[in-house]
This record gives sequence, structure tokens and C-alpha cells, in this order.
Amino acid sequence: MAEKEKEQMLGLTVKKEDDFSEWYNQVVLKAQLADFGPIKGFMVIRPNAFQLWEKIQNIFNEVIQEKKVKNAYFPLLIPKSFFEKEASHVEGFAPELAWIENKEEGEEKVAIRPTSETIMYDSYAKWIRSWRDLPLRINQWCNVLRWEVKQTKLFLRTREFLWQEGHCVYETEKECLDEALMFLNEYKNLMENYLAIPVITGEKTEKERFPGAKQTFTLEALMPDGKALQMGTSHNLGQNFSKTFKISFLGKDKKEHLAWQNSWGFSTRLLGAIIMVHGDNKGIVVPPKIAREKIVIVPILFEASKEKVLMKAKELNEKLKKFNSFIDEREEYSAGFKFNEWELKGIPLRLELGPKDLEKNQCILVKRNSGEKKAIKLNDVEKEIEKALNEIHKEMFLKAEKFLKENIVKANSWNEFIKAIEGKKMVECIHCLSPECEEEIKNTTTASSRCIPFNSKEKGKCIKCGKEGKKVLFAKAY
Amino acid sequence: MAEKEKEQMLGLTVKKEDDFSEWYNQVVLKAQLADFGPIKGFMVIRPNAFQLWEKIQNIFNEVIQEKKVKNAYFPLLIPKSFFEKEASHVEGFAPELAWIENKEEGEEKVAIRPTSETIMYDSYAKWIRSWRDLPLRINQWCNVLRWEVKQTKLFLRTREFLWQEGHCVYETEKECLDEALMFLNEYKNLMENYLAIPVITGEKTEKERFPGAKQTFTLEALMPDGKALQMGTSHNLGQNFSKTFKISFLGKDKKEHLAWQNSWGFSTRLLGAIIMVHGDNKGIVVPPKIAREKIVIVPILFEASKEKVLMKAKELNEKLKKFNSFIDEREEYSAGFKFNEWELKGIPLRLELGPKDLEKNQCILVKRNSGEKKAIKLNDVEKEIEKALNEIHKEMFLKAEKFLKENIVKANSWNEFIKAIEGKKMVECIHCLSPECEEEIKNTTTASSRCIPFNSKEKGKCIKCGKEGKKVLFAKAY
Repeated sequence: MAEKEKEQMLGLTVKKEDDFSEWYNQVVLKAQLADFGPIKGFMVIRPNAFQLWEKIQNIFNEVIQEKKVKNAYFPLLIPKSFFEKEASHVEGFAPELAWIENKEEGEEKVAIRPTSETIMYDSYAKWIRSWRDLPLRINQWCNVLRWEVKQTKLFLRTREFLWQEGHCVYETEKECLDEALMFLNEYKNLMENYLAIPVITGEKTEKERFPGAKQTFTLEALMPDGKALQMGTSHNLGQNFSKTFKISFLGKDKKEHLAWQNSWGFSTRLLGAIIMVHGDNKGIVVPPKIAREKIVIVPILFEASKEKVLMKAKELNEKLKKFNSFIDEREEYSAGFKFNEWELKGIPLRLELGPKDLEKNQCILVKRNSGEKKAIKLNDVEKEIEKALNEIHKEMFLKAEKFLKENIVKANSWNEFIKAIEGKKMVECIHCLSPECEEEIKNTTTASSRCIPFNSKEKGKCIKCGKEGKKVLFAKAY
Repeated sequence: MAEKEKEQMLGLTVKKEDDFSEWYNQVVLKAQLADFGPIKGFMVIRPNAFQLWEKIQNIFNEVIQEKKVKNAYFPLLIPKSFFEKEASHVEGFAPELAWIENKEEGEEKVAIRPTSETIMYDSYAKWIRSWRDLPLRINQWCNVLRWEVKQTKLFLRTREFLWQEGHCVYETEKECLDEALMFLNEYKNLMENYLAIPVITGEKTEKERFPGAKQTFTLEALMPDGKALQMGTSHNLGQNFSKTFKISFLGKDKKEHLAWQNSWGFSTRLLGAIIMVHGDNKGIVVPPKIAREKIVIVPILFEASKEKVLMKAKELNEKLKKFNSFIDEREEYSAGFKFNEWELKGIPLRLELGPKDLEKNQCILVKRNSGEKKAIKLNDVEKEIEKALNEIHKEMFLKAEKFLKENIVKANSWNEFIKAIEGKKMVECIHCLSPECEEEIKNTTTASSRCIPFNSKEKGKCIKCGKEGKKVLFAKAY
């Protein structure tokens, strides 16, 4: 195969701005981030993406350890009767359940977990006896399955996905609510300070609330196609589940009390958000703080100087081990091909090293996010790389934040609302919060409420029905 | 509740030597390692045990990274047709599959993975094109489901369990076999040098081989009740799967070749082995190298000196942070109760600190495995703890190794074989390796072949049928 052909096969054939959906699929497949599984709606998470998920797991495991949450593992299969205990919960999940064929007649039917509230709380009811057992804070990293009917999109909408779900139990409502918000805040920190994705936090309206929750808090990000993506949620479950699962404890007052509960989760859809928000026409751009391999060294090889250049490249690589640097010394590919490949795969920094650089005791540093090139002295390389990685994170975040700010518009009338949604914006407006009115908006525009932003005291008349309302964000959503 | 009653509830009510099976269940439940799930055959892995699994994951993730294996994630559900491609594979797993009820008529049936060879190799066939794509080394940590009919035993025999499964593809058979053995050896290192459990390595007989494998290598440990436990396996799959899944590559010779494959795995049953091998009549004994919290500090509190003792305990705790030490300063429990609780839960070291110790600038160090007590100077505490942890590991391993050696007996006749199996021994004997003869042995004694030990050149006449044979180990097994 000619060099030219190989390079064409590798690269993306559509532009992000021309066909966002096709661009996304190409990045995911060509950068070997995921693949379609053999069954509709299922995905294979390939090593290039799985290592990002592992990094996110490591970061968040440190957080939850600090917050005294412990990891555990609960069964994959849940009995039918468990779902039925909490009415709104079963209603919310019933259509999406995958049932197992009975092995023996008369057995109770069981389904694959779509989420684990019910099976975890059955155990909690056994384990919790007294105030001494509280707070109980448990998290699990696992797979869940929701037999979605909508079209699948790798990472964003698949029948099976990976996630973490934290489930805590408290003596008092205050503790419960405080920590639900604390975990939401830890999510925000993860998303903004590691994934470089700005999020808007707020509370979900009744219509968009988690089935069985008293309050649902959310983090919403805006994708380049104007659609919002829910990045994670934290639920104040109140006593809804403790009532039905009989999670009670003997209080310090020697009386029996129902416990207070929250739950919170984020999933592998974060990987989809990273691709969408940061990716460009060359491929994915991996946020430096979650990139395992932060640097690729590409030696520029000519017959005469090859040995010398390779030797220097290896020396450099040795020096940069803590960044998990690696050398691409394949001889069957051109330097240009290599540049394209590692740009496609999103390695944050490239160091080019040729015979002329050697003479000047330098290398060329190239930033993946901006393409910015710079000659740096080999003596300063570590310092320069630290600096460049920090810059990249900042630049990526600021670019995404600018986009977010520029694409939220205020709508003061129903016409303005429709125009903004058609213009692929996120819309800030006054809404009455009634599920029926929201349903109408969804039916006419396909936009849904994303959240009631925190700290917004604004009030007024609902943009749709004219009743008293509060500030709410709307957008089309994934 | 009176102090005495509380202490009784906490402790084990049977002895390991009197009723091993009941002892095991009590340790698992009372040390809060696992619990029964609501569906028969399913378990909840509680934080006390899950943290051991996480530690094992961390240790092994470092190994596989060094060996250039990458983690990924493949779908939970597998189409029926995939199982049917490899005849012996489907035969091996068919009775244990959990099928999903079809959502739409005419859809292909799908089952929950009992292992992932088929679904991974379907992707591999798409991904592998040329010798440049090899070796391909992928591992996944996941849940699998096998609808076993035998009685469940927490960690050891449950319908769902967690494991890692590595699946690699190579250009040559030699590389494939070499690495199958290399991974087995890494397992041995994990089990002996971290879990302190001695294992015997060897090859499985035809009867006990993995369905679809050309060769299965195994690590076998001996439990205190004389039953063997298979701790992990590594399979040389040859070209059996590459044939049926059409995993071929364009070689350096420009010709198309079938690839060579191996797979290897261990599961959460390792946690069961740790409990059985090391546990005693006080509870679980956690091997120090996988214990997250290696030290509990129990201050001996009297009204007059409480403040001073607690202050010193905190100082000590601060000094020992790298061992994840913690102080049990609960006032509603006696020191004796605390000793029992942390012994039940297996913390490797206890430091007791009372007012008299303070006067002597010392504390009392107690080793969980042996109960050995020793006063150590507070100035030497770090050094002494390092030393004690190393000693504990060695003592635990040597004790288990002694038991293993003492409980393998040679049988030169069928009568000796029967006597040894009835005497709860592992038996070394000559066997003809024919599956039919092995089946007969199993039917009459319930013992099965564990492995043909590596490097055994011994030959002779089969102990059962008199045909030519090789040295084989037999035992009853979990």
C-alpha cells in the first residue's frame, strides 16, 4: 500500500463542523476508542479509551476514600419484587429491563440491574441496626444495562455501560442533603479540573427527576452541536427507599428511626463528552491530566544520522519516564504518518527530534490542542513539559468555557425560545416547573429542561404557560 | 446489651478443626467479608473483602502493564451463534448459561457471558490484519455468570463472580506457549509472595482441560479440609479459536496465517482461599502485603490518663500513616471487645498503648497470625513494624507450605489411593491420563485429577487401570 493511501485511511474524512455525528463516529472508531459489539446497542471499550476510564476511576477512588466511602460489589441480577417496592422507581425502569429466562418453573423472575438502589438497600436493611452503623457510605464500580429504544451512540447511549454508583445512609436529613451536594461538587471538580469540561450545576425539575428521588442534582455540559449532556447526577432520596426497604435504626434517643439516603453516579458517557468537547478534525484531544502517555517522541530519521538521533531520543525518553513518554521508532512509516497517528489518538505533546535539532541541543515541542510549535533546549525539557501540560489543560478548559458562555441565550418569549433552540443554543428562561407544561415544550421543540441552576433567585412568568415560575435551563439533550 | 453478650455475638461459635464448613461461613459473615444475595447462588462482596480484591487488582495491573497487556471492556451479552462456533466450548458452558428473554420476536438469543473468548475473538478478527498488529494482549476485569447447580459457597462457588481474563494473540506457537507459562508464573508470584499461599503448578489432564483449549495450565492450592482449590488457570488455545473466528494475519512472508492464542484468569475465589488457608478460630488473618489497614492502635483508656494516652496514640497514628494505621478510640466498647473485633477482621498488627506503656515510652505490638506479643520502644516503632510485617508474611507462608507438604501422599496401589483420599490427603500417583479412567476414579472416590506437575519425568503403570501412565496429583476439589 502506498504511503499516501495509508495516511488517507488513517485520517478523518469529514469535518467536525460539517457533519458532527459522522465526525464523532469516525473519531471513536479510527482512534480505536470503541467499537460496536455484535448485539445492537452494545459497545466494546478499547484500550485507548479504557485507560482514560481507569484514570478517572483512580482519581475518583482517591476522593471517595478521603470521604470515607468504601467500595463493594452487589449482584448483577435483581428479583422482580424488588423493583415493585418503590412505585415510581419501577415505573421509571420497567421498559428498559432485560429479564432472564427462568431456569425452573415457578421461580421469581430476575432482571439485569439498570441501577442498584433496590438490591443494595435490601442488604442495608439487614446490616443497619443502630446509629453506630451510620453513616454507611458504599460505592460500586460496575456494569449496568438499560434496554434503550433510541438509536445507540458509542459511549453516549448504549444498552450496557460502566459507571460508579454511590449509595449512602445517614441519621439526619441535613447530613444526607449536605453530602449529596458535596459529592456533586466533587464531580464538578473532576470534570472541570481533570477533564477540562465546564459544567452547570443545578437541580432537576420534577419531570426529569430520578425515579424514586426527592431531589435530583445534576451537572450539565454543552456539546458542540448545541445538545446538552448530563455528566452526572446526585440524588437526595429522602426516606422514599428507607420506607419501602425498611432501613431503620435505633437512634441515640433509643427510638427507632427511618434512615435518610442519597445516591450519586457518573458513567462512561464522560468519555463521549471528552471526545465531543475537545476533539478536532485531526482526532481526539486527550486532556493532559487523564492522559496516561503524555508525550510521544518522534525521531526524524535519515540514514546518516539515524543512530545518533535514536540514541538521543532514548536518552530523552528515559528522562521523561514519569510522563509515560514513548518513542515511535518504526521505520516502515514516515514521520508525517506518525504525526497524524498520534494526533488522531490525542497524545497531548509531541517531541520531534532530528539531526539539526541535535546540533542545537534542542527538540521541537508540539501541543496537540493548538498545534503550537516551539523549539526547546534539551536541558529545560522537563520544566518546559510541565509548563506545556498545564497550559494545554487551561487552554482546553477556557475554550470549552467560552463556547458554553457564548451558547447560552436568554429567552423572554416563546418565540425567542423556539428560535434559540432551533439555533442550537441552550436557553435560559422562566418556567413554571409543571411536568405537563414541560411535556408540551418537549413535544413541540424536542428540548427538555436541564436544570434549575443553583443560586438563581430570578422569578417571573412561565415562558410557555404564563404561570409563576423560576429560572430554568432548556436544551436538546443526548 | 451486656458487654459479655456483645462479645459472644461478635465471636465465632465453632472451631475451624471441628466444623470447617460452618467455621468458614461464620468467618465470612461475621467479619463482614460477604453476604448472601437475595437470589440463590449470588453474593454481596462487602467492603472488608472488596478492598482485598482491589489490592490484588492493583498488584496485578502493574504486572500486566509491565508485560504490555492493555485493559479493555467487552459486552456482557453474547449471541447464541458465537457459543456454537467452537464445539467443545459450547458443550462445556451450555448448561450454565443464563439466557435473556427476547425483546422482539425472531431476534437471536443472547446469554450473559460465562467467559469472554467468543465475544472478544469476534472483535479480534476485525482488528487483526497484519503481523504489525501482533502480539495483541488484552485483559478485562469483569463479572461473569455461570448458573452452577452445586451448592453455593461464598467466594468459592457462586453463580456470579468477578475475575480478570487475559486474551492474547501471537504470530507463533512458541511465543504463545511461552507467554501462557509466563502469566502462570506471574500468578504463582502473586499467590505465594502476596497472598502467602503456596501453589503447585502443572498441566491439566484432557478431562479437566478448559473447553476449547489445547493445553490448560493450573495452580492448585490445598485447603485445610484436604480439598484442592484451583487458584487460576492459563490456557494455550492453539489455533482452535482462531480457526473458528477467522483470526488470521498477513505475515512478514506476505502470506495469510492463522494466529495463535492464549487466555488466562483468576477470580474472587482467591478471597475464599485466603480465608480458608490463613483463618483461625478468632477470624480471618489478612496477609500483610494485601492488607490496606495494616495496624490498629488500641489505646487502653482509664479516666485519669485518658487524655495523655489518646494524645500519644494520635501521635503514633500520625507516624504510621503509610501503613494506613487507625485508632479505635470508641468509648462504648472495652479494650477486650476491640481486640476481638480486629482479630475477627484480621488486621495484621495491633498496637496497645496504656498509661504504663507511656511511662516506659513503649507500646505493645501483637501479631495477628501468631498472637505473639512484644513491647517495643516508641522510637523504634516504624522499624519494628516493617520487621513484624515481613515476619508475618513469612510465617504465614511457611505454615501453609508445611501443611501442603505434609498432606501430599504417594499412593502406589488403588487401595492406598482410596485410603489417602478418605484421609483427606492430596494424592500423588501414576495415572494413564485417559478421561474414561479418570471418570471412574471420580465416580468411586469423588476425587479428580488436579494436575500433571511440571518437571515430573516419573512414569509407570496407572494406579487404576494398569496402563502406561505419568505422575498426576488427585484430590477432592472445590
